[in-house]
Amino acid sequence: MARAGNASFSDPTLQLRVRFAETDQMGVAHHSVYPVWMEAGRVEWMRGLGLSYIEVEADGISLAVSALELSYRAAAHFDDLITVATRLVTARSRLLRFEYRLVRASDDSLIATGATVHVPTDPSGRAMRLPAKWLEPFAALCRPGD
Amino acid sequence: MARAGNASFSDPTLQLRVRFAETDQMGVAHHSVYPVWMEAGRVEWMRGLGLSYIEVEADGISLAVSALELSYRAAAHFDDLITVATRLVTARSRLLRFEYRLVRASDDSLIATGATVHVPTDPSGRAMRLPAKWLEPFAALCRPGD
Amino acid sequence: MARAGNASFSDPTLQLRVRFAETDQMGVAHHSVYPVWMEAGRVEWMRGLGLSYIEVEADGISLAVSALELSYRAAAHFDDLITVATRLVTARSRLLRFEYRLVRASDDSLIATGATVHVPTDPSGRAMRLPAKWLEPFAALCRPGD
Amino acid sequence: MARAGNASFSDPTLQLRVRFAETDQMGVAHHSVYPVWMEAGRVEWMRGLGLSYIEVEADGISLAVSALELSYRAAAHFDDLITVATRLVTARSRLLRFEYRLVRASDDSLIATGATVHVPTDPSGRAMRLPAKWLEPFAALCRPGD
Repeated sequence: MARAGNASFSDPTLQLRVRFAETDQMGVAHHSVYPVWMEAGRVEWMRGLGLSYIEVEADGISLAVSALELSYRAAAHFDDLITVATRLVTARSRLLRFEYRLVRASDDSLIATGATVHVPTDPSGRAMRLPAKWLEPFAALCRPGD
Repeated sequence: MARAGNASFSDPTLQLRVRFAETDQMGVAHHSVYPVWMEAGRVEWMRGLGLSYIEVEADGISLAVSALELSYRAAAHFDDLITVATRLVTARSRLLRFEYRLVRASDDSLIATGATVHVPTDPSGRAMRLPAKWLEPFAALCRPGD
Repeated sequence: MARAGNASFSDPTLQLRVRFAETDQMGVAHHSVYPVWMEAGRVEWMRGLGLSYIEVEADGISLAVSALELSYRAAAHFDDLITVATRLVTARSRLLRFEYRLVRASDDSLIATGATVHVPTDPSGRAMRLPAKWLEPFAALCRPGD
Repeated sequence: MARAGNASFSDPTLQLRVRFAETDQMGVAHHSVYPVWMEAGRVEWMRGLGLSYIEVEADGISLAVSALELSYRAAAHFDDLITVATRLVTARSRLLRFEYRLVRASDDSLIATGATVHVPTDPSGRAMRLPAKWLEPFAALCRPGD
């Protein structure tokens, strides 16, 4: 299989610029912005692999965030180009877990690592099982244990 | 005189603290936060006068913002207490206009003045007429022409 | 000791309202807002105990966030009153750990639990030891192991 | 001259995607996000024309926002691609005025028009004259009266 071994390196990434509005008075990107970047990275990861989050939602499914972990390694500054690498590490009908690496493009320095856990919910916010239509492609893209 | 002297001064205000996350690397509150404060002030103005924005929305009506004006007078800093004074100056079935004064509580200095124009919309986002149930109380609270 | 036993329950809390701008299209407060609320709760916890974050910063010290954990338990909605309870559970010269409980005031339901780890840094962003002037009061307020 | 006549159409633009975090419970991008997009567009406009906002700040100059105007024409939705077109319409030593058009890329529909007025300030926040080093290139790129 072509993707075995270094599968995660070929996952689609997102590149974004740190916005001025995202800085705080310490002169760095505020820590609450990283979950927003991870979310944007996750959406691009899905798009790059042929999965549309808009289509998930059109099926009446939200992937509500049930847990968030972040480890901040180096500050990100205004105008830095940041690469958000996303990986799906758990894909079950009631739980998805994504992991992220945020890297400054100019010097490849690691800015942060993080994870989000998601629970599929229906429009009323109740937890539901992800239907096979969506569970199967997610499971096929899952890369546990790297 | 309709306004009985200083009517607008007795309108309900909101006091809020500038959050660290709201600062930017210039060391002041970022200019994009002011519309958020104005919105919060507007919601408290409504609540204080017996109008609930949740109830407006429960009737399938949103007050979509169609225009925004802001004049920044002095910087707001982390942890400043800011008073948001809100006034309704136009109340028609298809248009509401609110004006705002943001004042630093510690020294009464004027931080900003602003305005928002709102168009009543239905759940699909289409403009609609505000029903009498809501237009009448808004019109009764309107203080044009200061 | 007067505060032994239920010490943490008497720690200063912050009450805040969920802002409209903080909601997302799922109709709930977006998960990236919770770190902002936790930060605001931490600042009020400090103020309530006689510690000013502005004074910490005036001494050239920032408490940079090095890790963040959040577990989302129930959705928060626009206009909900949320109580942010903050507790300091580790206070060492190079590391502070705070834990948080976010509770909806109207029905006491648990919205989220979280934690932040902080590293004292100097104005250039380099890790430093917290001087005794600040370490001592933090240590005195620390409530490990509840 | 190639750029005469329709000069402004060749100004550098920014394309961005509406982030999920930028939506609100009306299902559209919240109105407070537009100033953030305009700022990001302005930074890219500068970069595309050989001006670096980081270099402006490195010279101890901030372009503080003193006024903001926005007219919202159509809603922007999650995942929409938005083009931010920026134009400098006034360039004086104590005042710059930028105007913006935000257009949805998929159907060319106008989302919003806006403007920001900027006052050059020194690191203490005091208004200053823009030195010739910066005023001249800004003035050369100014397109009043289109």
